[in-house]
Parts: sequence; structure tokens; C-alpha cells
Amino acid sequence: MKKLINSPENVVLDALKGMEAAHADLLKVHYEPNFIARADAPVKNKVALVSGGGSGHEPMHGGFVGKGMLDAACPGAVFTSPTPDQMQAATQAVNVGKGVLHIVKNYTGDVMNFEMAADLCRADGIEVESAVIDDDVAVKDSTWTAGRRGVGTTVLAEKICGAACEAGATLIEVRELCRKVNARGRSMGMALTSCTVPHAGKPTFSLGEDEMEMGVGIHGEPGRERMKLKPADEIVTMLMEPIISDLPYRSGDEVLMLVNGMGGTPLIELYIIYRKAAELAKAAGLNVTRRLIGPYITSLEMAGASITLLKLDDQFTKLWDAPVHTPALRW
Amino acid sequence: MKKLINSPENVVLDALKGMEAAHADLLKVHYEPNFIARADAPVKNKVALVSGGGSGHEPMHGGFVGKGMLDAACPGAVFTSPTPDQMQAATQAVNVGKGVLHIVKNYTGDVMNFEMAADLCRADGIEVESAVIDDDVAVKDSTWTAGRRGVGTTVLAEKICGAACEAGATLIEVRELCRKVNARGRSMGMALTSCTVPHAGKPTFSLGEDEMEMGVGIHGEPGRERMKLKPADEIVTMLMEPIISDLPYRSGDEVLMLVNGMGGTPLIELYIIYRKAAELAKAAGLNVTRRLIGPYITSLEMAGASITLLKLDDQFTKLWDAPVHTPALRW
Repeated sequence: MKKLINSPENVVLDALKGMEAAHADLLKVHYEPNFIARADAPVKNKVALVSGGGSGHEPMHGGFVGKGMLDAACPGAVFTSPTPDQMQAATQAVNVGKGVLHIVKNYTGDVMNFEMAADLCRADGIEVESAVIDDDVAVKDSTWTAGRRGVGTTVLAEKICGAACEAGATLIEVRELCRKVNARGRSMGMALTSCTVPHAGKPTFSLGEDEMEMGVGIHGEPGRERMKLKPADEIVTMLMEPIISDLPYRSGDEVLMLVNGMGGTPLIELYIIYRKAAELAKAAGLNVTRRLIGPYITSLEMAGASITLLKLDDQFTKLWDAPVHTPALRW
Repeated sequence: MKKLINSPENVVLDALKGMEAAHADLLKVHYEPNFIARADAPVKNKVALVSGGGSGHEPMHGGFVGKGMLDAACPGAVFTSPTPDQMQAATQAVNVGKGVLHIVKNYTGDVMNFEMAADLCRADGIEVESAVIDDDVAVKDSTWTAGRRGVGTTVLAEKICGAACEAGATLIEVRELCRKVNARGRSMGMALTSCTVPHAGKPTFSLGEDEMEMGVGIHGEPGRERMKLKPADEIVTMLMEPIISDLPYRSGDEVLMLVNGMGGTPLIELYIIYRKAAELAKAAGLNVTRRLIGPYITSLEMAGASITLLKLDDQFTKLWDAPVHTPALRW
């Protein structure tokens, strides 16, 4: 296992301390239980947005804490759900009485723990609602997931809902908005290599020198098919077809395209993917009016990429364009 | 060789077409000869800034084209200097009579070709000046370089000089500013793995499963020493010591720290590195007032990281903070 770490035990804590040292202007890291909150939390007069999940997907979610996006994020151990007490503490820290929305990726542990945390917070008198992201079209059920996995659309939901919170939406409005983003977002990914969970010390799965995993999950869960490596354009075609066919797009629809790197794939390859994906979107009559290209929801050092399409409307576009100031997204 | 590409021959062209499709609002890609210019080039009433170098280091340089940074960038073949005709065409395209500064990383081919292009442009009546970046403290001479290699400080010089151009600096002022940035910037990097140049089809160098290369160059050039893998904190200490000791810092100096990923290293590891690097800077009496953490000057899919320190003054800080709108840097 080759990693720039001190020890498997310290990966998450060391990284949190790095984030704290780097971004004190934007966020404050709380320990025991661990969560990352906006430096100016709690922010008056708005619904608060909390997310979280296993570490190893950086910048998700901690890198999305800041003005216009998340109020707090709860980092679990690597590829492990955060615990209810983290979520409860984060929710308490950002609540100002307008309610708190939990954005939850659809993995069994995350869903269960966020539900438990929501119950605990409600018992404290905090209004909490949840929205689950399950946008991965690759497989129906998966390791650690009943139903579809939550992947790239999470980034888009956190941005769009964060903007809505800033604009004064109510808790129920933001919850419905998040569900609408999820309903209109579709993703699929693939891997050229496995990743290695620090504690495990060996690759999560193994691929031959000429193989790839189509439809891989962000924790290295099996996808649709293991097959021989193909040229990028063919890979993109195999990712785009299930994404486009899963949602009833109409010619002329405006979409946001996220081409996401899995952690070990360099930007030059993501642009090669974007070229073909944009071409296929155009051929399908879709108008890509917004895009994001880079490593936004990673899987440690996995080499691979995923594509997310989100069907836009005027509301989504306006909220996407609204100012954001976080470590990973800023405009 | 596992890459998301179509063929080694098409890597650069496919990626350029992806950039063009993705960032038409910010830049325009010109072909034969290839260069990337601001969408609104030539921009009236300012000195123009042009850089370039081999591809495979994305987002450098094309991702830094836009308002507040580069007017144009020339992408060569992977790890190969662009040709003088690319540089000449780019220089002509952005020149508005105020002069053009070439920012050149210190590699023999780049320096020679930029000199040739400058001569060609001067023969056309364009005022051209050059500034060379040679900030890598790892080794004195290297494969493809007489003197120190140009690495991370290039990103900082392009940002700071781009802001100065927007603010109305003259050609000579921007040239001197760039040289001052170079004089105050120091970098060193290391690799956990090699990268594979697409045309070569096999790794540039080989490292054992428990080895790393300290002081590696951005093309995989040999560094100071190949050694057994160590914990991140020890690696950071070995990178910071030569950087700090090379420049006569004084206690209380303000610095900008860039923790750069080499392409295959995920963000979680960069934050682990930042934590220790910031701690060591503090112990040396340095005050890290600005920072940048992420993959900004990569080496294809190489796993590894580099650290750059730039000694700030009020002028540098102000220019660093000035607005920038490029694919890779935006605020």
C-alpha cells in the first residue's frame, strides 16, 4: 500500500487537521464527535444543510462546507458511515430554529444513522427533514445499498439546495427541491484500478492489467460488468447510454454535466471524456449549459471516472449560478 | 498502460477539444498551430501574458487562461516543449501593442523554443520579454534541464503577473515582477509511483512497492534519492527542510503555501501533507497567510506531491487576491 499517510488509524484525523489549518476562514472543525461546520455557524435566519458520509471521497463533503452550500458535514472513518452522535452534534451546532435538512447518500449505514440522528434531534425539539440521493444507474442493489447508490448528484444537490437555503427557502421547500434534484440526476462510473482502504492495506478488488470495471461504486462495489479496457470514446458511450435512457429527456432539454475523477485520474483524461460525453449529449438533443469537471466525489486513489447528468430548469440554473464559497467550489 | 484515452496519438487533441467544449465562455482553442487563448483576446490596453509547455501537467497551463491570469497557453505534445510556431501564433493573437511576456519553465527545449519565438515576434515588431521559472530546489541540473527545474512557482507567477497585467503594469514591470516571484519561490516534490507517457506505453521509471523518489521532477526526472517509503510527516519534513533553508526567510515572514498533487494523489492525502507542512512553517516562524491545495501542476497519473513556498509581500498578496476567472482558478 503506497499512500501519503502517517498510519491507517490517523488518516481521517490528520486530514481534518489539515483542513482546519488550511481553511480557518471558511470552516471550523469540531472533534469528538467530528464534524466540520461553517466558520460563521450557526447562520441566522436560514434553514441549515447537513450532509456526511465515509471519508475517502474528498472534497465531498467537508470541502463543500461554506457560504452557499453546506452548513456542516460529518466525516466518518474511511468508507464508513459517520455515527448518529456526529450528525446530532452537527445538526445542533447549525440549527437556528428554521430547521435542518439532512442530505443522505443511499447507503444502508448512512441512511440508518441519519434516521437515528434525526430522531434524536427531533426529541430535542429541532425540526429535521431528510432527502436521500440514489442516482447511480449502474445497478439496482449493491454491496451496502438497497436500491440505487448515491453518487455524483449529491454534489449538485448540495450546491443547489445550499443556494436555496441562502435565498430563504423553508425546510419543506428545500427538502422537496433536493428530492427534485435527485429525481432529475443520473450517474454512472467506471474504474481502471481499485483503491486501497488504509485499514485493509490491500486493494478492495483486483483488476487485470487490461481490465476495467463498468458501473463501479464509489467504494469499489462491483458494477455491471468487468471487461477488457476499451478506448475512452467507447467507455463514455457505455456510461452515457444508461444515463440518458434512464430519464425521459426531451430534445432541447438543458442539462448540467459533471465529469468526475475518482481520485487517481488526471485532468487531461477527464477532458478527453468530457469531449465525447458532450458530443453524445448533443447527438441526443441535450443542451449542456452548465458543467463541472474535476475530482469532486473521489474513491481514495482509484483511477476512473463517472459522469452525472442533471436535467436543468430555470430554478436549478439560477441556484447553481448563485455565489458559493467553499474550499472546493467557489464562484 | 491503463488510461482513459483513445490512442496515444490523440491524447492532446482530444483533451483540447474537451477544453474547448467545456470552457467556450472563457477560452478559445486554436489549432494548427495549437494554442489556447482567452475567449475575449486580444484584450485591449494591457500587457499580454503567454506561457506553455508540454502537455500532461493539466490544469497547467491551459487551465490558467482567462481573466486575471494568462492570455494564452501553448500545449506541446505530452512532456514535450511546444514549438516556436505555436508560441509565435499565440503571441501574435494576444498582442495589442503593449508587449507580451513569456513565462517559461526552465527546461532546455522550452527555453530554446520560447527564445526562438521571441526573436520571430520581435522581427514582426512585437515587444516580447521573457521570465524563466527555476524554483525546484531538489537538484542542480536534471534530465532536460541545465540549472534548476521550473515547477510549482510557475502557477503562482502566472496568477500574480496576470493580476499585474490587468492592473496596468508595463511589460518591463511585469517581467521584473515575474523574476521577483521566481526569486522568492521554492519547491520540491516526491513520487510514490511513476507516470506513463502515452507514446512510450510503459512507466518512465520504476519504483519498488516500498520505495519512493524524493525530489522527483514533473516528468519523472530522477530526484535526490530513492528511498524506502516513510510516513507522511517524515516525507513532508524532508521536503520542507531544503525549501526553507534555501531562501533566507526571517521569522515573521508571510508565505503562500502550495501543496500540489501530481495527478494520481487524492485530496485526502494532500490535506495530511498540508497539516504537517503548515506546522513546520509555523515552527520556522513563517506565517502562512495564503494557500492553494490540489492538483495544479501534474505529471499525468503520477502519485506524489510537491510543496511550494512563496515569500509574500503586500504587493504579491494584493495581486494574489485580485479576481481571477479561469477553468482551474476562480475567485
